[in-house]
Amino acid sequence: MTASAPNGLRAGFIGLGIMGRPMALNLLKAGFPLIVQSRSRGPVDELVAAGARAAVDAAEVAAGSDVVIVMVSDTADMEAVLDGERGLLRGGHPGSIVVDMGTHDPTAIAGWAARLAAVGAELLDAPVSGGEVGAKEGTLSIMVGGPAAALERARPMLAAMGSRIVHIGDHGAGMVAKACNQLVVGSNIEAVAEALNLARAAGADPAKVRDALLGGFAASRVLELHGLRMIERDFTPGGRVALHAKDARIVLETARRVGVELPGFRPVADALERLIARGDGELDHSALITLLEEA
Amino acid sequence: MTASAPNGLRAGFIGLGIMGRPMALNLLKAGFPLIVQSRSRGPVDELVAAGARAAVDAAEVAAGSDVVIVMVSDTADMEAVLDGERGLLRGGHPGSIVVDMGTHDPTAIAGWAARLAAVGAELLDAPVSGGEVGAKEGTLSIMVGGPAAALERARPMLAAMGSRIVHIGDHGAGMVAKACNQLVVGSNIEAVAEALNLARAAGADPAKVRDALLGGFAASRVLELHGLRMIERDFTPGGRVALHAKDARIVLETARRVGVELPGFRPVADALERLIARGDGELDHSALITLLEEA
Repeated sequence: MTASAPNGLRAGFIGLGIMGRPMALNLLKAGFPLIVQSRSRGPVDELVAAGARAAVDAAEVAAGSDVVIVMVSDTADMEAVLDGERGLLRGGHPGSIVVDMGTHDPTAIAGWAARLAAVGAELLDAPVSGGEVGAKEGTLSIMVGGPAAALERARPMLAAMGSRIVHIGDHGAGMVAKACNQLVVGSNIEAVAEALNLARAAGADPAKVRDALLGGFAASRVLELHGLRMIERDFTPGGRVALHAKDARIVLETARRVGVELPGFRPVADALERLIARGDGELDHSALITLLEEA
Repeated sequence: MTASAPNGLRAGFIGLGIMGRPMALNLLKAGFPLIVQSRSRGPVDELVAAGARAAVDAAEVAAGSDVVIVMVSDTADMEAVLDGERGLLRGGHPGSIVVDMGTHDPTAIAGWAARLAAVGAELLDAPVSGGEVGAKEGTLSIMVGGPAAALERARPMLAAMGSRIVHIGDHGAGMVAKACNQLVVGSNIEAVAEALNLARAAGADPAKVRDALLGGFAASRVLELHGLRMIERDFTPGGRVALHAKDARIVLETARRVGVELPGFRPVADALERLIARGDGELDHSALITLLEEA
């Protein structure tokens, strides 16, 4: 490792999946010394070839870094990363910061923060939006919950991965923002799917309709990206149905907890579950249109 | 009238409402000789002061122009403009083109086109998206159905009002595209309303959540414009609930006719009707959030 850290911070990264791999590569490009750990060997080897060091477990990552980014999707996996026999809590040292960038239930965050605080470490919840494209280009939107001082220390690293960093509020507020994000993205994918399916059924060319709609109030990144996938019948993920359904359950649970109605989103969450039930959980969420075509 | 028409076309305009008034002004600015007619005296006087000529009825507009833009919202009003005792069908002359830029049922268009053809005139359905802002700035998106040759003749005039002109297909295809547009806009307004209401209820600042979401896949013109209205509690129209509800009925009727399901949009259409039922039909459609807050 010859690169010098832009602000003296040593970076750790756990979870080198579709999103994590390009995010970690951007940390290397920005000059942070990087220690990584992931379940799959392939991405670890790739990061090592690019200049990272491989750790055998989360505790070793924590011991060798000042800020640890964790990008794992399931809450159970996140708890294992924290609490496992060789988890972060065994290697966290005073002054270290753990940044949870996966999408998890907002109510879990305060408890995780308290357990890290017991070993002198801090937690930020900092989930992202922008998908694989945003991860590769370093243009993710990052929604941050937790102490402002910790965010300021971690900011140079976040800035290597995202172009918009918004401090939403206390622990869990980042996850609330992400739940809101997944609600809007899901509802908008369904809306675009319903519109393009209606256009086709009514004899209008969906590609032309999409083109026209991009010039008015219907314009959105979803119409741009997911609308194009629907027209090109390209349901390779991208954003997997199974992951969006997991996030949708967090949205519904958060709404239930705080007592608000989601009349528009509820049928979208149902549709995601139906896709999983028929074995399409690994497709891109733009596959929502296929349910409508078969209705 | 001293301005010279960019391509020798004389313009007519019927219906100088929130959208029609700035659209007609843009025709004048582009140099088209313009003859106008509208129910309200105020906008007619304003257009005359800007250089237009006032007609007493639709027939006089048709007689004095080559391309007549009609911007009236109700189907009944459009039929009166066409078929009234002094309607367009009495003044239409061979070679003239009527451009229906309001939002009407796609199935009505072919019949109107046939009746205009009987007096030697052509019809384009060319509804718009982009709202009052787009109308003022001349940046509307225009979705066109009807003969390509008629579109090419009318195009210089449309280009004075919009920045995106897409020929979707035959008579009615423009209206189908607009129905798709209103579906996406309505569903997305509801999604943004549900997200910002969820954020507030869960203790996260809706303004910060909107800011973060604008950087990712949730980004849209609706999040930008209608999201801001929701945060600023500014429900002055803009796009009126009553008009969107009228368009939503066209969406539902089109879907019924061609046999497709709209599970995400149906509750949005219901919500628009509920706003009207409680007397909020004249508010901006971003007022959808108020229903959620009171649930």
